[in-house]
Amino acid sequence: MLLNCDIGESYGAWTMGLDDQVMPFIDQANIACGFHASDPLVMHNTVRLALQHKVALGAHPAYPDLQGFGRRPMVCSPEEIHAMVLYQVGALSQIAAAQGGRLSYVKPHGALYNDMMRNEAVLRAILGALSQTADKLALMAMTTANNQSLKALCAEYEIELLLEAFADRAYDEEGYIISRSHPGAVHNDADVILQQVMAIARGDAIQTVTGKPLYLEADTLCVHGDNPESVAAVRFIRQALTEKLA
Amino acid sequence: MLLNCDIGESYGAWTMGLDDQVMPFIDQANIACGFHASDPLVMHNTVRLALQHKVALGAHPAYPDLQGFGRRPMVCSPEEIHAMVLYQVGALSQIAAAQGGRLSYVKPHGALYNDMMRNEAVLRAILGALSQTADKLALMAMTTANNQSLKALCAEYEIELLLEAFADRAYDEEGYIISRSHPGAVHNDADVILQQVMAIARGDAIQTVTGKPLYLEADTLCVHGDNPESVAAVRFIRQALTEKLA
Amino acid sequence: MLLNCDIGESYGAWTMGLDDQVMPFIDQANIACGFHASDPLVMHNTVRLALQHKVALGAHPAYPDLQGFGRRPMVCSPEEIHAMVLYQVGALSQIAAAQGGRLSYVKPHGALYNDMMRNEAVLRAILGALSQTADKLALMAMTTANNQSLKALCAEYEIELLLEAFADRAYDEEGYIISRSHPGAVHNDADVILQQVMAIARGDAIQTVTGKPLYLEADTLCVHGDNPESVAAVRFIRQALTEKLA
Amino acid sequence: MLLNCDIGESYGAWTMGLDDQVMPFIDQANIACGFHASDPLVMHNTVRLALQHKVALGAHPAYPDLQGFGRRPMVCSPEEIHAMVLYQVGALSQIAAAQGGRLSYVKPHGALYNDMMRNEAVLRAILGALSQTADKLALMAMTTANNQSLKALCAEYEIELLLEAFADRAYDEEGYIISRSHPGAVHNDADVILQQVMAIARGDAIQTVTGKPLYLEADTLCVHGDNPESVAAVRFIRQALTEKLA
Repeated sequence: MLLNCDIGESYGAWTMGLDDQVMPFIDQANIACGFHASDPLVMHNTVRLALQHKVALGAHPAYPDLQGFGRRPMVCSPEEIHAMVLYQVGALSQIAAAQGGRLSYVKPHGALYNDMMRNEAVLRAILGALSQTADKLALMAMTTANNQSLKALCAEYEIELLLEAFADRAYDEEGYIISRSHPGAVHNDADVILQQVMAIARGDAIQTVTGKPLYLEADTLCVHGDNPESVAAVRFIRQALTEKLA
Repeated sequence: MLLNCDIGESYGAWTMGLDDQVMPFIDQANIACGFHASDPLVMHNTVRLALQHKVALGAHPAYPDLQGFGRRPMVCSPEEIHAMVLYQVGALSQIAAAQGGRLSYVKPHGALYNDMMRNEAVLRAILGALSQTADKLALMAMTTANNQSLKALCAEYEIELLLEAFADRAYDEEGYIISRSHPGAVHNDADVILQQVMAIARGDAIQTVTGKPLYLEADTLCVHGDNPESVAAVRFIRQALTEKLA
Repeated sequence: MLLNCDIGESYGAWTMGLDDQVMPFIDQANIACGFHASDPLVMHNTVRLALQHKVALGAHPAYPDLQGFGRRPMVCSPEEIHAMVLYQVGALSQIAAAQGGRLSYVKPHGALYNDMMRNEAVLRAILGALSQTADKLALMAMTTANNQSLKALCAEYEIELLLEAFADRAYDEEGYIISRSHPGAVHNDADVILQQVMAIARGDAIQTVTGKPLYLEADTLCVHGDNPESVAAVRFIRQALTEKLA
Repeated sequence: MLLNCDIGESYGAWTMGLDDQVMPFIDQANIACGFHASDPLVMHNTVRLALQHKVALGAHPAYPDLQGFGRRPMVCSPEEIHAMVLYQVGALSQIAAAQGGRLSYVKPHGALYNDMMRNEAVLRAILGALSQTADKLALMAMTTANNQSLKALCAEYEIELLLEAFADRAYDEEGYIISRSHPGAVHNDADVILQQVMAIARGDAIQTVTGKPLYLEADTLCVHGDNPESVAAVRFIRQALTEKLA
């Protein structure tokens, strides 16, 4: 079970996230590419930090919306999405290559991620872009109770799929995470988070908000490095995974 | 003697340049990368057009200034310039690769081009970036009466240098083009343009604004596709080069 | 019956629309405010042109999306919409005041306009902003077969409503314009356009795409100055309104 | 002696500055207007906070450069500067008016501020814009050893001048602050800061970096709310000014 984290979300004079503190504990860095956050110099520095810690490099492309941090749903055509994913992946890829690094996967960000999970045309636009990269970059996407159609589409484009689950989010019966606007959507209790992490890691069921068992197939867990509390949670999760799964 | 032209400078809903009309007559397309003009979809369509006409693909990176079209001098650090060149080159490179194309050179745009010609730190930042590209992309830069230090720096970074002259611009005795703000800076007479083109192509001297002879070493001539008149001039230059040099 | 037109949609080095050609024939200029098009200098020049022709000044605020020309639906909170409308109205208002002009109305642009017509929270956010302007600027919105709720909301905020109809667009039975993606959505035949204009101006019914009669209450007709054909249509409409209604 | 502070420099999801902590101790808030920092909603919230604390509202316009935080020198024409100042002042003015507030002054930001101090054409462009505001907004500018020409130009445009000195910056003999790139440019010792503040407030000489006495005429002192240390310094300065000048 790997840990992935959104990284490199500073922009110009603005700093966001405790990247240097969380980097030692994660396996995969979802690196912002300048459309929802970051700029070329921030990307350069972020790649350097990730390479120092031998963390896998992933592109984290988004809709072009700095002001809205890529979280605002925006209606873009499949052609626009295809081109914007290639653009962002290419930019990060070149900055990484300049330091001897290679990207290994792509995780769409924010509203683009959500749209990809619900709209097949968006998913196909992204997969089409990935299938045109030299390394056939893998796609990181959300695991749910039923990953059949997601897997089928990735297979159609010959793209490896990395399924991610969330350590600190409550799930509904279909395996979708509960919207942050609902109470109880985010787990804050360390024991609850740990229990969910270990269940997913062992292949056991977690409990949905309605109290039903839910089995989630996952390759990686999404964690956060926004603040000292979330960094502490990542250290805690990393330690638990290392010790208890050993 | 090749012909190069700034291409792909539309942006979103705004159209600029008669790309499809000028493309058949040029050898090298300086393709905007989204910082002074263009966006991912425009870049995709521009690459397609260039590939159809077997025109060499060049990246045309700029300062991040859409509103000023990259023409406003902007003080950026060498680290920023290094990263922004890699970013833009990488973005275009990936969009080109998705269609089976490869970049062969980089021509900085506007204020970045001017700053590169006058400020060694800027030139080094750009050369350093190019030396980190997989294909060691060539640099297209302005020829003057004395290209020694430019050549020495390119050699230091092991970067091929493509020297460009201007078909329609008046030159001073040091081989720099006269600023557009001066009268007589731009040649509009077809005969004058043709004379300058043929002199450069044959290795003969052209005449400076002060009436002195000026020898310009050049690999390529910069032409324009902004309007019907400039496209007509390109056809005219192309025909003259083909016929008279044959 | 007045004529309104989107104006001032150039941006930096990019030109759009034949503003100087269409300005003599319109009554109301919907002036872009820098979020979907325009910049401060373009706004300054646009206001000057409108004042020269004694055309009423309207703000044309949009979602912050230059690349998408404000046409992409974007989910923004009512608080964000309220603030972005005030921002854009204030910017244009000050540029107009510097030349002795005053705004008289606001017409939201593109996706913001569409969202306002379908989503009461968006409409309320806009009306709330207008009610806080010193001149209680009027709102220009789309007339349909039933304007009751629109009128009621404007009355609640004590905002004058300017109903606009479209000269060249086909309508459905509910009085909504047919999406441009459908065949027959845009009238290109001058006689058809003229017939629709005169019917609306006289208070007669127009014909929907389904052949039913449709009565549209309108204060103003939306016309376009994008190209020579649309400018010719505006001259034609202006002449017809002047002559036949005289 | 008043205290002014740059305020409202957050942007979208990025937070900057401890606005709510420093606001109680300042007299004048230099509020970012969206070109180097801030966005409409941040501006709305910043105005509200300033009004709660009865702090005077100032516009803090900048070059259009979010990525560079308005600190990069950018060559803009006087016409562009005139229009961009009106645009930003108007936007903030309308957002303030919606809450019953009025702007009282304008302090250009970053590179625009520096350019204004050194380039008369830039200063005239700004003064021309201010002279076209309804309230003839005052200009906040840097005091030096010789303010004659600055005063003369403000008088020519009938614009009130607010001279500001810096509490924590070292000065040269001409009364210009030493560039941050030089050692000793910024005072960190509380006693040194206090001594400089009190000398300026009492009309006594401060000491330049070369050890000479320097008299600075000042209406207001620029302080900072970036971090807990700078906020502590502001509280300290406020207390000293209140007690010792009483």
